[in-house]
Amino acid sequence: MTENRNDLMRKKKTPSESFVSMTELVLPNDTNTLNNLMGGRLMHWMDIVSAISGQKHCNSIVVTASVDNISFRTPIYLGNVVTLKARATRAFKSSVEIRIDVEAENIPEGKKVASHSAYFTFVAVDKDGHPVEIPEVVPETEEEKALYDGALRRRQLRLILSGRMKPSEANELKSLFDTKG
Amino acid sequence: MTENRNDLMRKKKTPSESFVSMTELVLPNDTNTLNNLMGGRLMHWMDIVSAISGQKHCNSIVVTASVDNISFRTPIYLGNVVTLKARATRAFKSSVEIRIDVEAENIPEGKKVASHSAYFTFVAVDKDGHPVEIPEVVPETEEEKALYDGALRRRQLRLILSGRMKPSEANELKSLFDTKG
Amino acid sequence: MTENRNDLMRKKKTPSESFVSMTELVLPNDTNTLNNLMGGRLMHWMDIVSAISGQKHCNSIVVTASVDNISFRTPIYLGNVVTLKARATRAFKSSVEIRIDVEAENIPEGKKVASHSAYFTFVAVDKDGHPVEIPEVVPETEEEKALYDGALRRRQLRLILSGRMKPSEANELKSLFDTKG
Amino acid sequence: MTENRNDLMRKKKTPSESFVSMTELVLPNDTNTLNNLMGGRLMHWMDIVSAISGQKHCNSIVVTASVDNISFRTPIYLGNVVTLKARATRAFKSSVEIRIDVEAENIPEGKKVASHSAYFTFVAVDKDGHPVEIPEVVPETEEEKALYDGALRRRQLRLILSGRMKPSEANELKSLFDTKG
Amino acid sequence: MTENRNDLMRKKKTPSESFVSMTELVLPNDTNTLNNLMGGRLMHWMDIVSAISGQKHCNSIVVTASVDNISFRTPIYLGNVVTLKARATRAFKSSVEIRIDVEAENIPEGKKVASHSAYFTFVAVDKDGHPVEIPEVVPETEEEKALYDGALRRRQLRLILSGRMKPSEANELKSLFDTKG
Amino acid sequence: MTENRNDLMRKKKTPSESFVSMTELVLPNDTNTLNNLMGGRLMHWMDIVSAISGQKHCNSIVVTASVDNISFRTPIYLGNVVTLKARATRAFKSSVEIRIDVEAENIPEGKKVASHSAYFTFVAVDKDGHPVEIPEVVPETEEEKALYDGALRRRQLRLILSGRMKPSEANELKSLFDTKG
Repeated sequence: MTENRNDLMRKKKTPSESFVSMTELVLPNDTNTLNNLMGGRLMHWMDIVSAISGQKHCNSIVVTASVDNISFRTPIYLGNVVTLKARATRAFKSSVEIRIDVEAENIPEGKKVASHSAYFTFVAVDKDGHPVEIPEVVPETEEEKALYDGALRRRQLRLILSGRMKPSEANELKSLFDTKG
Repeated sequence: MTENRNDLMRKKKTPSESFVSMTELVLPNDTNTLNNLMGGRLMHWMDIVSAISGQKHCNSIVVTASVDNISFRTPIYLGNVVTLKARATRAFKSSVEIRIDVEAENIPEGKKVASHSAYFTFVAVDKDGHPVEIPEVVPETEEEKALYDGALRRRQLRLILSGRMKPSEANELKSLFDTKG
Repeated sequence: MTENRNDLMRKKKTPSESFVSMTELVLPNDTNTLNNLMGGRLMHWMDIVSAISGQKHCNSIVVTASVDNISFRTPIYLGNVVTLKARATRAFKSSVEIRIDVEAENIPEGKKVASHSAYFTFVAVDKDGHPVEIPEVVPETEEEKALYDGALRRRQLRLILSGRMKPSEANELKSLFDTKG
Repeated sequence: MTENRNDLMRKKKTPSESFVSMTELVLPNDTNTLNNLMGGRLMHWMDIVSAISGQKHCNSIVVTASVDNISFRTPIYLGNVVTLKARATRAFKSSVEIRIDVEAENIPEGKKVASHSAYFTFVAVDKDGHPVEIPEVVPETEEEKALYDGALRRRQLRLILSGRMKPSEANELKSLFDTKG
Repeated sequence: MTENRNDLMRKKKTPSESFVSMTELVLPNDTNTLNNLMGGRLMHWMDIVSAISGQKHCNSIVVTASVDNISFRTPIYLGNVVTLKARATRAFKSSVEIRIDVEAENIPEGKKVASHSAYFTFVAVDKDGHPVEIPEVVPETEEEKALYDGALRRRQLRLILSGRMKPSEANELKSLFDTKG
Repeated sequence: MTENRNDLMRKKKTPSESFVSMTELVLPNDTNTLNNLMGGRLMHWMDIVSAISGQKHCNSIVVTASVDNISFRTPIYLGNVVTLKARATRAFKSSVEIRIDVEAENIPEGKKVASHSAYFTFVAVDKDGHPVEIPEVVPETEEEKALYDGALRRRQLRLILSGRMKPSEANELKSLFDTKG
C-alpha cells in the first residue's frame, strides 16, 4: 500500500511547523494598582498563542485541556512589550502539549524585564466537537528532543493531579522522588 | 505585654473572612469558534476573583505568584453564567494559597454545565512593592481543615516544579510516590 | 386535578432563590479623569447582575424593561472592589422587579467607600422573544416583605413616568402626596 | 464695574451650545443571547454622551449625580446603528440636567427600530473634586422651554426618591397627583 | 417609462443625507505611554464612523475597500473629547468615497487640541457579499463641489498605488506633476 | 577620535533588528455583520505591531506620524488567524518608515485567505515628547534594498499629500508620471 506525500506530512510534524510568535503591548487595563501586568491577562495571552500553535500542529480546531503549574517570578510593567513564542513539544493519542516561552522588555531602556515558560495541552476536535487524530511531533534539535522526553513526565503529573492516574503507576515521575536513586 | 483586639484580628483569619463570589456571563468575545468559553478568559476571571480574596485576607495589594495545574474537563458555552468562589486555604511566610471553585450553568435550561477547582498563590506587598506579613489562616470546618493540610503538599510540588526545592526534600509529597508506604 | 412538585416550585420562589453576588475590580478604563468609576460602567454591571438574578427567578431569558431613578452619592475609585448583590423583590404578570445593592471597598485600607441601591425590572421571554409566565416572589424575612410591599408603589411610578398610567389612578403612590392624609 | 463678553458667555448658555451627537454600532459583545442590545451597554453610552454634554455646558469635569427612570420599550438589534443626542435642559445651583434622545436604525433595511429618551444629572467639579459654579441654561425654542419648565418637577421627584425632600414640600410635583386640580 | 419617487431618491443623494457625527472620550486603554491617543485607535473610530456614513448613503452593508494617506500632526490626549464627522463626497460604479473630519478638544480648558481629515472608500454589498449599485452623490455647497471634483484625482492615486492603473493613464493626477503646466 | 562599539551599534541597524511578529485571532467583536474583520480593527493591530518595531529600531518611545494608502482586497473572516510582520525600511532625519506584511489563514481548512502590506511612519521622542535622533537603516537583502530605495518615493508622496512639499519638487516621484521618461 502506498501513501502520498500529503498524507505523510499530516502524520508527522516538526515543532518548527507549529511555531507561533505573538507580541503584546501592556496597556493600562492589563495592570493592577502597582502598574504590573496581571497574571490573569498573561495567562489569557498564553492560551491564545498556544491554541493557535495547537491549531497549526493539528490543522483543526483545538480546545484547552489543561495548564501546567506556572510560576510568576518578576513583574512585567505598563508599557512593556511581551513576546510569547509557542510550539508543540509532543503529541499523545488525543492531546498535544504546547510549550510557551514568554519574554518581556522595556524597549526604550533596552532591558529585558522578565522571562519564563509554561505548558498548555489541547485536544483537537472537528466542527461538532468530536476528537480528531493528532499528528506526531518529531523533534529535531537537542532542545526539542529534551522537551519531547520531559513531556511524558509532565503528562503523568497532569494525570495524577487530575485524579486519572495513581501515583504508584507513574513510573517516569516516580524516579524523581526515589531517594535510593 | 498586651495586644489590642485589632492586632489580634489581623494575625489570624478564617477562610470565610476572605470569601469572594464573582459571577460572569459568557459573551461572544469570550468564546472560540465552537462557542465554548476559552480557557484563557476563564483563567483571567480566576485570577481576578482570587486576587480579591487574597486582598481580603492580607488587607494589602497582592500579586500573583503561581498557578497550580488546572484541568478543563467539560465545555462552558456562550450565554452560560459562570460563578467563581474563592477563599484562602493556608498562608505561608510570604504567600497565601487561594482555592477557586468554578461552576457554570445554563439557567434557562436549569442545568449545571461544568464544575472544577484551582489553586492560585499570591504574595502581599505594600505600595512600593515590598513584601508585607500575611495573617495566618485558621480553618474551621472539616473541609477547610483538609484543604489546609493539603496546602503543604501542593506547596512542595510548586517549589519542585519551579526549581526551588529538590524532590528528595519534599517529605510531604514523597509519600505519595512511595510504593512501600 | 393534581400538580407535581416540579410545577409547584416553578410557580413560587423566595428572593433567596434568585440571589446573585458579583464582584468587580475598578480598572483604568472604567474611570474618568478624576480616577472615579464612571456611572455608566456601574449601571452596565448592575444590568448584568440583575439580569442573571432575573434569569434565576424566571428560568428563562430576560430583557431589561426599565431602570428606576438611581442616585450616585459618593465616588468609587480606581482599584476599589465593587460588590453587587441582586435578588427578586416582586413579580407582576409579565415582569419581575430586581433590587441591587452595591458596595465599594478599598480593601488594603480596610474601608468601605460607597454603598447604594437600585431597582431594575425585566420581562421573561422564550427563544423567539415571546413573553413567558413568571413565578411569584414569596418574601420570607421582614426586609423582603417591606420590599415586596414597596414594589407596588414603585411600579405605579414607573407606569406614570412612562405614560402608561394616569397619576389620578395611582392609588398607592397618591397617598404620598396627600397633604390631608 | 464692567464685564467682558467672555465672562458673560460663561454665565448663560443655550441648550444648543451643549449639544453632542454620538453614534455607536451594536457589536456582538453588546448583545444578549437574543441578539438584542443589553440595557446596561446602552446606559453606559448614555452616560458618556451626557457627560460630554455636561462638560461642554460647564467647561469643567463633571460626575454623574443621578439617572432618572428609564423605560426600554422596543429591542435594538446586533448591527443596528444607535444615535444618541444630548443637550442641557436646565441648571440648578450645583447640578445640570441633561436630556438624551436615543434612536436606533437598521440602515440597510431603512427602518428605525427604537426611539426613547432619558435624563441624567451631573455636578461640575474642579481637578480636586470640589464643586464649581454652573452657567444657567437659557432655553430658546418652544421645546427647550417646555423641557426647562419640566426640569423643576423632575428635580423634585429625584429629591423625594433619594430621601432629600419630603413629598409634602414638592409643590410642582404634587399638583400631578391632585385629583381636585 | 415612469419611475416612482422612491426609486429616484435612491439614485441620487446629497452629502448631508449621509452625514454622521460620532463622539468618543479618550480612555486610558486608548493611549500610549505618553498619554497620547494611539493612531491605531483613532483609525478604528474613523473606520466605524465612515462605514456608518457609507451605509447611510448606500442603504446596504458596506466593507472598507481602502484608506488614503493619513498624516497625524498634533497629539490628542487622555481625557480629550474626539468628534468625528463623516459624509460621502462622490460615488463611483462600485465604491463610494467618505471624508472624515476629526477634531479633538480639551473641554475643561476650552481648547481645541487637534484637527485633521481623511478619506476612506467602501464597496456596498448585499447579505451574501455581492456588490450592489450605489446612488450618485450630488454635491450642493461649494465645499462639497470641490470635494466631489478632487475625488477623481484621489481615486486615480488609489488605483496607481494599488497597481490597478498605470501612472501614464492618470490624466487628472498627472497635471499635478507637470512642470510645464 | 574614537567611538565605542555601543555607540556604533546605535547609529546603524539592519531591518532584521527591528523585526516584530504579532499574531491575532479574529473574535466576534472584531467583525461586521458579514462576519468579516473590520478594516479599523486591522489598522489598530497594524499600528501596534509597527509601533513596537519602531521602538525596537529607535530604542525610544515612538508616535505614529502617518499611514500610507492601504487597500483591502480580500475579506478576513471570524476565527481566522492574522499574522502581522513589521520591520524598518528606512530612517530619515526625524522619522522612520515601517513596512507591515499581513497574512490571514483559516488554519483548520489549511488555506491562506488574505495577504497585503502597508507603510506606517513614526517619530521617536523622549519622555517629554521631544524628538530624538534615529539610527540609520542598513538594508542587507535585495528585497530590503528595494524597500530602502522606494522609501524616498513614498516619502515625497506623503509630503505632497500633507501639503509640505510642492509636486514640482518631488523629483523621485515625478518620473512616475513622466510620459516621455
